[in-house]
Amino acid sequence: MFNELAIPQRTIMTPGPVEAHPAVLQAMTRRILGQFDPAFLTIMDEVKEMIKQPFGTTNKEAFAIDGTSRSGLEAALIALIEPGDKVLIPAYGRFAYLLGEICERARAEVRYLEKEWTAPFAPDAVIAEIDAFNPKIVAMVHGETANGQMQPLAEIGQYCRANNIFFVVDMVATYGGVPLAVDEWCVDIAIAGTQKCLSVPSGLALVTYNDRVEDVLDARYQKELGLSKTDRNERHIASNYLDLSQLQRYWNQERINHHTEATSMIYALHEGLRVLLQEGLSEVYHRHARNEGALIAGLKAMGLNLYGAADTKMPTVTPVFIPEGIDGEAVRNMLLDDFGVEIASSFGDLKGKIWRIGNMGYSSRKENILHVLAALEGALLYHQAPIQSGQAVPAALRFYQNNI
Amino acid sequence: MFNELAIPQRTIMTPGPVEAHPAVLQAMTRRILGQFDPAFLTIMDEVKEMIKQPFGTTNKEAFAIDGTSRSGLEAALIALIEPGDKVLIPAYGRFAYLLGEICERARAEVRYLEKEWTAPFAPDAVIAEIDAFNPKIVAMVHGETANGQMQPLAEIGQYCRANNIFFVVDMVATYGGVPLAVDEWCVDIAIAGTQKCLSVPSGLALVTYNDRVEDVLDARYQKELGLSKTDRNERHIASNYLDLSQLQRYWNQERINHHTEATSMIYALHEGLRVLLQEGLSEVYHRHARNEGALIAGLKAMGLNLYGAADTKMPTVTPVFIPEGIDGEAVRNMLLDDFGVEIASSFGDLKGKIWRIGNMGYSSRKENILHVLAALEGALLYHQAPIQSGQAVPAALRFYQNNI
Repeated sequence: MFNELAIPQRTIMTPGPVEAHPAVLQAMTRRILGQFDPAFLTIMDEVKEMIKQPFGTTNKEAFAIDGTSRSGLEAALIALIEPGDKVLIPAYGRFAYLLGEICERARAEVRYLEKEWTAPFAPDAVIAEIDAFNPKIVAMVHGETANGQMQPLAEIGQYCRANNIFFVVDMVATYGGVPLAVDEWCVDIAIAGTQKCLSVPSGLALVTYNDRVEDVLDARYQKELGLSKTDRNERHIASNYLDLSQLQRYWNQERINHHTEATSMIYALHEGLRVLLQEGLSEVYHRHARNEGALIAGLKAMGLNLYGAADTKMPTVTPVFIPEGIDGEAVRNMLLDDFGVEIASSFGDLKGKIWRIGNMGYSSRKENILHVLAALEGALLYHQAPIQSGQAVPAALRFYQNNI
Repeated sequence: MFNELAIPQRTIMTPGPVEAHPAVLQAMTRRILGQFDPAFLTIMDEVKEMIKQPFGTTNKEAFAIDGTSRSGLEAALIALIEPGDKVLIPAYGRFAYLLGEICERARAEVRYLEKEWTAPFAPDAVIAEIDAFNPKIVAMVHGETANGQMQPLAEIGQYCRANNIFFVVDMVATYGGVPLAVDEWCVDIAIAGTQKCLSVPSGLALVTYNDRVEDVLDARYQKELGLSKTDRNERHIASNYLDLSQLQRYWNQERINHHTEATSMIYALHEGLRVLLQEGLSEVYHRHARNEGALIAGLKAMGLNLYGAADTKMPTVTPVFIPEGIDGEAVRNMLLDDFGVEIASSFGDLKGKIWRIGNMGYSSRKENILHVLAALEGALLYHQAPIQSGQAVPAALRFYQNNI
């Protein structure tokens, strides 16, 4: 027999999951409501409207999928892909390959446009490849958590729109932390998660899409066999669970019986969105940018070097080189075990070369920035890294004073 | 701008989602842990072990999928199905067609064996169809919430095993409320949910499978492109998100980076399982059976008639005919609006003909049974239904006294 949960205190400075907002945690203690209880349907309707705001969209459709962020990526891609469709994946980081993996499994013809991970694409490079490959879909990551770089989207989106190509964008790591403009950037489907800048636990994916996508969904909708034995559709989406054409009809007034909505997670999402919008989106983005500035000031004062291009860096993730001769995992373990501070390692070629420090949502607080700088300095000095001591925290404090 | 959540008080007597256990709701207020934090991995390991017990299995593999119950059904079926594989679906209720829908979307060749919904199959009937169709997989529902009937599984399972056929069983509506014997019944993959007898919110699916399935998963495993560019596999599972071969390697010591586990839902699951096992499985099953007996005694004393065969009825769902001339939805709405009590309608041919009263998990309490009987009597009398007044609650109370 096991004991009651024992949860140690943590300061989470990874690119997710991050600390949940107290109002979000409190919301999950509320009693269950039936999935078609009018009181619950009202909550779903409010969630739909609130989801749209950080996306920067007036799309009719926006809702949550009961799965983690990548369930939303898969739902979005398989909604559009039919076997043999051509998808272009410009890859400047690890999560582009997740998009590609999903497309390949959906039997698309996938072409990767690859480059160094230190910076995103110049829009022209993507546009040239679009001309060469003539894809049905271009799928990109807005903010790559693996390397902390962020892709400018507007030019690519406008080119896709002009050429009747679908533009699908993973905004998981930027939603709620960075200004987004889904409509202006001509993004047809955008996907986000809850466990990053929204300060909600992992477990839901957020999606919004426009009429161009809805037309495809209408053409592919197949009413489930348990509800109708006659409404068959040759072009139906391959998954039942991740079928946006059904999910939309569950979240809308039609209210088809698809799954049983994840009650407590929807409560959490409602409160996460509500406190975000109450703080004000521009205030939220300013808070993230300010905390990023202080973190960078501290890291540089310590003598550490940042990875990647500065002008395209994500405010929400700061990749930093592990000093020569230092065992990155030993330092990470000391941070966790002795300071209760969690930072992240990375993937692929960057594994063992950089750490990634998150700055997301409720974790993006001044005291957390100061705590991670002090803890990292202490752990690095303990491991005899050649850094400047006593510089990081004052530098961050000065940054805060000079940047209100 | 929207207000803080307003959740009305409800007594939920539907077949799910049901009331969450207070210890479960409390667990969700706990702070977030990183997905690879050793403290969180310990919780995952404990959850794995606890999941097995209500399933009645010593399988090595048991874990949660971050999606509602049907995500587990889809994950289980697509793990085994390759295009053209033959699947037999014996259908004695609505959710068998969900299994079929999933199989059809996975490009299986599906045959349905259909019958009246009033009782499950005689095992011989299924075995005869297995001989006629020679399927690779037989997929069945253990307890059909739509009509409240429960399928005896042992003979069918043993026949499948002897003939090297995979036996996949949906135990969503019986897990934690009815004794299960996955190993003894020769079930290769069993799937359950959280929002029914486990008294945990909706949002996770539970799955367990044996070595026969694990061999298939090993043969089909494809390491994700973001983690390896060389480990490709022609037979890979069609979905990335619902790929059991990857999920297993996330839950096991290999700890591949797949999704970000749904932290708070896993806390909730841990506590839901823990309080269930602490009460004791035989005590839990007895509680459900006793509350069912009292409910039936009350409904019959009122003069209402139950739907379906009595000897194969699920203890966790009681389908009852709507009295002649009564608008079932008007009564349901009155129960919800005026009494705060929720009962369910049904699907397909049974829509408008029966109500379904749930008796699951934390909702399966004496005070809830007495409350739903009193409320239903009041609402029916208000609607001038020809029922016995003043009989239901005393009959239930007498049943409780005579059946400790």
